[in-house]
Amino acid sequence: MGTRYCIGIDIGGTTVKMGLFTVEGRLVEKWEIPTRHEDAGGHILEDVAASLKKKLADEDYSWNDVAGVGLDVPGPVQPDGYVSVCVNLGWMDLYPAQELSKLLGGGINCYVGNDANVAALGEMWQGGGKGHKNLMLVTLGTGVGGGVVVDSKIVTGAHGAGGEFGHIHIREDDPDTCNCGGRGCLEQTASATGIVREAKNVLKASDDPSAMRQFGDALTAKDVCDCAKAGDSLALKAMNTCCRYLGWGLSIICMTTDPEVIVIGGGVSKTGQWLCDLIQSYMNPLTPLLADTQKAKVVLAQLGNDAGIYGSARLVLGSELGN
Amino acid sequence: MGTRYCIGIDIGGTTVKMGLFTVEGRLVEKWEIPTRHEDAGGHILEDVAASLKKKLADEDYSWNDVAGVGLDVPGPVQPDGYVSVCVNLGWMDLYPAQELSKLLGGGINCYVGNDANVAALGEMWQGGGKGHKNLMLVTLGTGVGGGVVVDSKIVTGAHGAGGEFGHIHIREDDPDTCNCGGRGCLEQTASATGIVREAKNVLKASDDPSAMRQFGDALTAKDVCDCAKAGDSLALKAMNTCCRYLGWGLSIICMTTDPEVIVIGGGVSKTGQWLCDLIQSYMNPLTPLLADTQKAKVVLAQLGNDAGIYGSARLVLGSELGN
Repeated sequence: MGTRYCIGIDIGGTTVKMGLFTVEGRLVEKWEIPTRHEDAGGHILEDVAASLKKKLADEDYSWNDVAGVGLDVPGPVQPDGYVSVCVNLGWMDLYPAQELSKLLGGGINCYVGNDANVAALGEMWQGGGKGHKNLMLVTLGTGVGGGVVVDSKIVTGAHGAGGEFGHIHIREDDPDTCNCGGRGCLEQTASATGIVREAKNVLKASDDPSAMRQFGDALTAKDVCDCAKAGDSLALKAMNTCCRYLGWGLSIICMTTDPEVIVIGGGVSKTGQWLCDLIQSYMNPLTPLLADTQKAKVVLAQLGNDAGIYGSARLVLGSELGN
Repeated sequence: MGTRYCIGIDIGGTTVKMGLFTVEGRLVEKWEIPTRHEDAGGHILEDVAASLKKKLADEDYSWNDVAGVGLDVPGPVQPDGYVSVCVNLGWMDLYPAQELSKLLGGGINCYVGNDANVAALGEMWQGGGKGHKNLMLVTLGTGVGGGVVVDSKIVTGAHGAGGEFGHIHIREDDPDTCNCGGRGCLEQTASATGIVREAKNVLKASDDPSAMRQFGDALTAKDVCDCAKAGDSLALKAMNTCCRYLGWGLSIICMTTDPEVIVIGGGVSKTGQWLCDLIQSYMNPLTPLLADTQKAKVVLAQLGNDAGIYGSARLVLGSELGN
């Protein structure tokens, strides 16, 4: 038998990313196709199957060498792989892995997971969490998402809500309502949107000079982070607040699943190690039960937009592999 | 082959409880022996092995019919079964499962876990969580402990700190320091000790009459719960505060591992369904992402002091069984 491969498919609202990996985790090739929305997303998996078949034929790979295909979707996935609704794709009432397996001729093992959960698995395999079996990924983007991995396996949860860190209630005095209908959600404070909101509130409440003021209403989370890193005191004040709530929320999760590392991804993570250090400084004092060497290490994600294809491919390998 | 059995051992600081179960989960027989503390607890496992051998010989069971032996210890257990220190037993630097297996002659599979984690598994098998694979147990006693079960398997965590709910930081304005060195730990508010502290603070801050006043300094958590159930407004005020923080902490865990049920155990749980309803009423609004039918159900533990032997025996059966 020759080299064995696994395939990872990351289905997003705009494009479908695909990657061919060796089972050891080396990305051999990646490519993408547009996401077709017509007919309630009914052609997406057909397109995926066609693209996969063509790629393997063109490049002379044999399906016999493919251990399986994993895919992720941008919405809740039940533990048995059922997708009730996926708004971004138009899907309703679907078992995407079974469907794809059928479209590929029935002989290929297919697996499915939620995109944020799967990204956590990808970061475990070949990213910021490499070498660890217990970790969580927190993505700080427009919203806050993530995934929990325990013993090299995604914690899907009973209803697919595992790793929904964005909607943990953490800020008692938050006056605004979250998109989810709740109040005081972590996402309201620690997302890119939340950082901007916090910074604007800090600016409004103060007459002190700040480099942030030049951006006016167009202020972005990157601006706030850049100013804070450069020492701007109002930007620092805002980031301290955001990272305090984030560190607090993460500390609670540390006392629940006790991970080795916490991987920070999403656009805000481009701020770099400085951000990890700030989060860590708020998290550590809140886990006094863990010795210093036991405290989860806050690290940066490394796979960027490829986390989904890595993680989807890793789904194929199961939890027995270790990592 | 006849009936298959598994054996569960719950090693406590005062007694060692033992139970013989069918693999279907029926308790056939239970018995106990005192915990010998001399020589740094070095005779405890010898005593266990001797008692097991005698029991099986006396009752004419064959070791060939025993699928394995599980045991739990009152302290941290690393994922590989290593016990670095167990203060309550005097143990240091021990692999108790390997040790017991050796003492039994080497042919018996032995397993070990932390007592609170193992109790969660017991409640899953034959207690308040029966029929579910994803749950958490929270024990409200002198302290607050518990365990997380995901897909019928204990989440030990990377350093054995899985399910250490007592030390999640939840109460920002708590002026007192917790035993762990932290501040604002859930245990400080939701344990039996915490409930009494809260009630005494409420009594001190008010001149209103309360049935709790008759108990003076000897006030217990049971008194507070009884008075609250009977409608005493100051007792209710105290219990509302305790259950608000508890419900809040549990809501965060629901967004992390998304369990089907939350089993409440420990002395305080003798308050009954009224307590579950109160906790649920504070938890539900904080998990808006979950539909009403998806919200974890707060239920009472059912196995009492036998949870340890049930859970230890269940360790033998692994996670493949489902539940």
